[in-house]
Amino acid sequence: MNDFVLPFDQWLAQVVASVESTLDVYLPTEDEEPAFLHEVMRYAVLGPGKRVRAALVYASGLACQSSLDTEHFKALSLAASAVELIHAYSLVHDDLPCMDNDELRRGRPTCHIKYGEAMALLAADALQPLAFKQLSQMPVAPALVIQAIDILSSAAGSHGMVGGQVIDVCHVGQQLSLTQLQQMHRMKTGAMIEGSVLLGAISSGANSEVRQALEDYAAAIGLAFQVVDDILDATVDSQSLGKTAGKDEQSQKPTYVSLMGLESSKTFVNQLHQTALAALLPLGPQAQRLRELADFIIRRHY
Amino acid sequence: MNDFVLPFDQWLAQVVASVESTLDVYLPTEDEEPAFLHEVMRYAVLGPGKRVRAALVYASGLACQSSLDTEHFKALSLAASAVELIHAYSLVHDDLPCMDNDELRRGRPTCHIKYGEAMALLAADALQPLAFKQLSQMPVAPALVIQAIDILSSAAGSHGMVGGQVIDVCHVGQQLSLTQLQQMHRMKTGAMIEGSVLLGAISSGANSEVRQALEDYAAAIGLAFQVVDDILDATVDSQSLGKTAGKDEQSQKPTYVSLMGLESSKTFVNQLHQTALAALLPLGPQAQRLRELADFIIRRHY
Repeated sequence: MNDFVLPFDQWLAQVVASVESTLDVYLPTEDEEPAFLHEVMRYAVLGPGKRVRAALVYASGLACQSSLDTEHFKALSLAASAVELIHAYSLVHDDLPCMDNDELRRGRPTCHIKYGEAMALLAADALQPLAFKQLSQMPVAPALVIQAIDILSSAAGSHGMVGGQVIDVCHVGQQLSLTQLQQMHRMKTGAMIEGSVLLGAISSGANSEVRQALEDYAAAIGLAFQVVDDILDATVDSQSLGKTAGKDEQSQKPTYVSLMGLESSKTFVNQLHQTALAALLPLGPQAQRLRELADFIIRRHY
Repeated sequence: MNDFVLPFDQWLAQVVASVESTLDVYLPTEDEEPAFLHEVMRYAVLGPGKRVRAALVYASGLACQSSLDTEHFKALSLAASAVELIHAYSLVHDDLPCMDNDELRRGRPTCHIKYGEAMALLAADALQPLAFKQLSQMPVAPALVIQAIDILSSAAGSHGMVGGQVIDVCHVGQQLSLTQLQQMHRMKTGAMIEGSVLLGAISSGANSEVRQALEDYAAAIGLAFQVVDDILDATVDSQSLGKTAGKDEQSQKPTYVSLMGLESSKTFVNQLHQTALAALLPLGPQAQRLRELADFIIRRHY
């Protein structure tokens, strides 16, 4: 994990294996009651996924303290699984008929298509407290655990992810200004991206200067992540995307592409990429995985 | 709050005022964006409610340490508001069309009737992280904060409240054994009742002997609470109940009344009442508010 010579895709594969093994251990199993609920929770979380947020936690941890001991690695794994649990719950609720009404997610039937709406609703509801339990078990100083919980609750709450989703839902079919769109994306996707990077830093005892650099990095790639999503939705077919493509235009959602056009959106992504890399300069070579993740997020084509 | 001479109903009114003022301070306001989301969150939480769980937090705190100083009072208020936030989110999701499809709650339109399904879903989603944030701000030793977060996450998770809801949803129209019904209720309602009592104890630095007595008390009244709910649903009209009455029978939900009959259910409640009072004996006069709450929960008629 802390071998900087390893090619990025192999490092990312290690990250995916590591967070999925942590999730597998901490998610309740189908041997425990209520077995059906646990099956749905595991379906929602353990399916194929890029695990970008988890990778950001580990990469941020490495940027702060490159020699990972066992405790530090465990703390990062718990933080990484916590952000993946929040992300997974949000996707399940996002896909529900009263929200995006999506039938396909990561190439598989969405949770409510497979298990029904009530089970999808409840399984996702049970993922949230599990995320906070994960953080409560991090082997770091109790004061840092409490900071981590504060950060995750802000990122997942009404001033973060859920707030962004509400602005999104409330503006379907309406024109948004670029500032409003940016605010929506900063909250909807950016808050959890920033939260992931900060959790990695907190689990590693980063000082406030390092945290600030990481926040600047995260703000830029968080935004870039959503702009790239909008570009992909407008340009890639459903099969390659692993979810229903063209949904944004079909449902008249405001996007960067609808507002700025495709070319300007691509230019904007490149600017954000440069901003992210510049923010990492003070961190030196230890920030390698964060730089590679910025490239990965921005250059993904599926 | 810690005046034991005050009649119970006046003490309870103090509790309600205290937890509602804490919720009012910590819930985001409509002056902050997204204003609409914050309006829905406040509607879901700040409506009329008995605040039984909040009262259990304070009463349990008093049973452990009857002289409440400012910090202790603040810790109990934060814990009490955390359990009320979890309870409020669960009611909003429970009322959704894919769940109980209820239109009336505490005498008012349910959240999705007033604001639409998407907003009800999301506002409730934003209440969960806020509950954990409340606990993270308790002015007690960090190790106790972490214990509190662990307890709330268990109570609200798949082995607690949500697990119980799933068992409930999965057995509509089916016969349950008394053991299965009891297990379902222990999780669905009992877990948060027990969690509330334990949070009060933890915020007050209770030792393990006291915690055990409180757990025994909470297990008995948690179960009694649900049996009383079943009895009320079968015997009281909608207007007095403040929600749609007779829903259980109509939706063929297994209940104590359908399984044991009305008279045996009432006998069972009285047995649980005695068990709860017996558990409190070692705690002496300081447990007065817990005893009164047991009476209140069991004798309520609306």
